[in-house]
Amino acid sequence: MIKPIDLDRAYRLLNIGATTLVSAAHEGDADIMAAAWATALDLTPCKATVVIDKSHYTRKLIEKSGFFALMIPTAAIAPIVMNLGTVSKNDNPRKLEECGTCLVTLPEYDMPLLEGCAAWIVFRVVPELHNQEAYDLFIGEAVAAFADDRVFVNGRWNFEEAPDDLRTLHYVAGGHFYTIGDALEVPASA
Amino acid sequence: MIKPIDLDRAYRLLNIGATTLVSAAHEGDADIMAAAWATALDLTPCKATVVIDKSHYTRKLIEKSGFFALMIPTAAIAPIVMNLGTVSKNDNPRKLEECGTCLVTLPEYDMPLLEGCAAWIVFRVVPELHNQEAYDLFIGEAVAAFADDRVFVNGRWNFEEAPDDLRTLHYVAGGHFYTIGDALEVPASA
Repeated sequence: MIKPIDLDRAYRLLNIGATTLVSAAHEGDADIMAAAWATALDLTPCKATVVIDKSHYTRKLIEKSGFFALMIPTAAIAPIVMNLGTVSKNDNPRKLEECGTCLVTLPEYDMPLLEGCAAWIVFRVVPELHNQEAYDLFIGEAVAAFADDRVFVNGRWNFEEAPDDLRTLHYVAGGHFYTIGDALEVPASA
Repeated sequence: MIKPIDLDRAYRLLNIGATTLVSAAHEGDADIMAAAWATALDLTPCKATVVIDKSHYTRKLIEKSGFFALMIPTAAIAPIVMNLGTVSKNDNPRKLEECGTCLVTLPEYDMPLLEGCAAWIVFRVVPELHNQEAYDLFIGEAVAAFADDRVFVNGRWNFEEAPDDLRTLHYVAGGHFYTIGDALEVPASA
């Protein structure tokens, strides 16, 4: 069910503003954190921004490796998303094992990807040290993208035909999320 | 129904990743455009980023005035959002009048705000010329925020008790949106 996505359509994975998970790895050390503040930055090549505080273990791995992945988790794994967002690998080196995560490693990028997501995008960091230091803002250029073809079909989200637990998460605060809702079509001539 | 929001809670208006409208004005000239690529950047003071291509009329007004507003439109005005996102004031100086927009001007900021939104945040531009030129990325620091208290209650989104046409829009592509869906609570101990 996991299919590669044309990179010139990858921005559409981010358009709906879902909460993301950020993963990174370096020399066998991996981490995943939750990040609500990720968004598309450019169409072709697809770029994105994500805000990653200096306290996060994942950030060190990104700075060492020069790569990160943005993943779009689904309602099915909301408890895992909360765990990944509240437990720090600074405090618990066994964070990933204990968070109930099931990881797939992309051989080409040494990048841990989490099962149960609707989409996965791997980014190469575009170094912008001022943004990283002053704003904790990282820019990435997409190098690979994948999506679950039950919910992303022909380059477009399509949640209507799929089980509800494949819907994306949209973070509010604390343990409060919304899932993505109903489709709404606006005629071009409206 | 429109209430001021504490600025230290304003990031929550952006957390769910809704599609936004960007407005700006300078010396009596105003424009509003649609922008799916807006997100929070910092908590206190609340900052946000938004991507605004050089072709947009609104961008010139932001660069002249040093201010912009992010508004979070609702399903009720989806056709207006599409119009504001497809018609350019470069081509049609009467864009706002013809888009069916009903504007309220904030006296303090000379900033046109659109009725029918769920929230409105006014930002002062944090000048970062490299980001603006290289990435079309603007950073703003919030100076005022307002929300419709039918859907943003005690510092948190709460769509469940309100009419469905007050739900936020999440852009896919073309005329395709999703509205925000069901609440999902994850216990902190999960």
